[in-house]
Amino acid sequence: MRIVAADTGGALLTEEYEPVGLIATVAVLVEKPYRTATLSIVKYADPFNYDMSGRQAVKDEAFLAVKLAKKVKPDVIHLDSTLGGIEVRKLDDVTIDALTITERGKAVWHELRKDLQPLAKKFWEDTGIEILAIGKSSVPVRIAEIFSGIYTAKWAIDYARENGRVMVGLPRYMEVELLSGKIRGESLDPREGGLYGEVEADTDGIGWELYPNPLVRRFMVLEVWKE
Amino acid sequence: MRIVAADTGGALLTEEYEPVGLIATVAVLVEKPYRTATLSIVKYADPFNYDMSGRQAVKDEAFLAVKLAKKVKPDVIHLDSTLGGIEVRKLDDVTIDALTITERGKAVWHELRKDLQPLAKKFWEDTGIEILAIGKSSVPVRIAEIFSGIYTAKWAIDYARENGRVMVGLPRYMEVELLSGKIRGESLDPREGGLYGEVEADTDGIGWELYPNPLVRRFMVLEVWKE
Amino acid sequence: MRIVAADTGGALLTEEYEPVGLIATVAVLVEKPYRTATLSIVKYADPFNYDMSGRQAVKDEAFLAVKLAKKVKPDVIHLDSTLGGIEVRKLDDVTIDALTITERGKAVWHELRKDLQPLAKKFWEDTGIEILAIGKSSVPVRIAEIFSGIYTAKWAIDYARENGRVMVGLPRYMEVELLSGKIRGESLDPREGGLYGEVEADTDGIGWELYPNPLVRRFMVLEVWKE
Repeated sequence: MRIVAADTGGALLTEEYEPVGLIATVAVLVEKPYRTATLSIVKYADPFNYDMSGRQAVKDEAFLAVKLAKKVKPDVIHLDSTLGGIEVRKLDDVTIDALTITERGKAVWHELRKDLQPLAKKFWEDTGIEILAIGKSSVPVRIAEIFSGIYTAKWAIDYARENGRVMVGLPRYMEVELLSGKIRGESLDPREGGLYGEVEADTDGIGWELYPNPLVRRFMVLEVWKE
Repeated sequence: MRIVAADTGGALLTEEYEPVGLIATVAVLVEKPYRTATLSIVKYADPFNYDMSGRQAVKDEAFLAVKLAKKVKPDVIHLDSTLGGIEVRKLDDVTIDALTITERGKAVWHELRKDLQPLAKKFWEDTGIEILAIGKSSVPVRIAEIFSGIYTAKWAIDYARENGRVMVGLPRYMEVELLSGKIRGESLDPREGGLYGEVEADTDGIGWELYPNPLVRRFMVLEVWKE
Repeated sequence: MRIVAADTGGALLTEEYEPVGLIATVAVLVEKPYRTATLSIVKYADPFNYDMSGRQAVKDEAFLAVKLAKKVKPDVIHLDSTLGGIEVRKLDDVTIDALTITERGKAVWHELRKDLQPLAKKFWEDTGIEILAIGKSSVPVRIAEIFSGIYTAKWAIDYARENGRVMVGLPRYMEVELLSGKIRGESLDPREGGLYGEVEADTDGIGWELYPNPLVRRFMVLEVWKE
């Protein structure tokens, strides 16, 4: 099975470890044995000016996933929205009201579907590929999340080169390592069966430190500075 | 403490990683230091013709646990039903209605108790051994679950010898390894403190691969084929 | 950031692995990189005569945390009560009623605040240091929990020297090792990013064994005896 998935993660942090805004939306192509991505593309956000409601993230993820899917023609697309795996092209207002999610979630999706249902419907008519709102259950979505952490580290390197130093928060229980010529990221949850990723990056002249965010258990902080 | 526990797990999967039916009900004897089973017995189901409601599983588990307990005389029996550790012989209709479980769960137990309460009552009268509905909290139940994954791998080997190739899903966050003359299974959750099991098996001429189920995070797929 | 946190943990167990009472309240000073404590102090309870309602624990933790904070002047104090990080000095009756916690939790806090609000208010007026009810989200609270497990092992050694043998239950998913001249404790959850602690202790002539509590998944039992 060839799956395209997308997710958004990584946050710019203040000195007090509070999130300012999210950094990286990533789409990945995941193939058997489903432990990493064969391909990945990124769209960086401006964390200093970010809509933290979550609506922007889902929209960016859907459009980025479709962009990658047009190129690689997967069997299916997974989005990070836990609606039980429903097809996004079928998300009309009546269906949304019947979902067993919070009233707040329904309001968000009544808004989101205005953009996403036509996108999913057209993509399905053109290619036969479904976009599923599968969320937490999907391994490719988790791999996209891990890659969003890796690209966040890459963003931090570029930011530190220009501004001297920066602190970012990685997605849930994952770590990154800045190696020679690349960044490697790994899940810290062994129950997931060894999910990881690698992205090329120029790490020369960059110092870094990784440690637990003291205010949010199971989330790591990455500090990066120009040496 | 000597504990007999039972659980059912392992599923035949379609090529799309969807479960067809469950495979192995296992009863185990667990003794200090409670990391593996001293003894295990298995009852295979027909996954092509399986009652997925869960009722059949609980009944099979109770009868298999009692079968093993008759032989090894444990201090107590643990079943994989999370009813707070209540004694099954006390599960009359009034007690079931007073449990803090779902209405659906109550309906299932009103049905189940017709078989299980007499079984538990008679076994207790004969031996003084209680059958507890302890479920998720019990380490022996988790060890039974790990053994159900190991026996599922054994079933898959036999099936592949006859039919060429098969895909099975293991119970939650566990892995198996096909070694020379045996199958070893281990929990992937280190918080459980190192739970594992081994079962003898002829693995000659068998190829295998283990990887994450892309549709169900924290569950592994085992593919087995005749080489 | 320099954080003082406190927690209570470790339980004396019966031969049937049932808790008799809690053992150790610990306050720790945690500094960057937030993986262990720079300083720790302990107040032992009498597990044979323990108020298991939880009220005593929270009170002991608050007073012990303030005692350590007076010495080390941290930026903030974290308590193991999951009230969303609210400042304890602001916990008047109206605020407690507005919290999204259980009715039982509200009753407990209406009682607790009689002691804790004046303590927090005075400490804040004297030092400017806030006491936050942050609970599960705080890494320093988890480090305090790990140290409570280490001090529980130390208590068990002293108890075994006098009484021959003892069984204690450690806090959730952690292990301890009795080494020469010290006790080392580590989280068993790798998602936490490597939390650990060490405390000096005379371990000469002491035998020990660590294994899963068969009745409570993800909790370990420590047995200690005089050799």
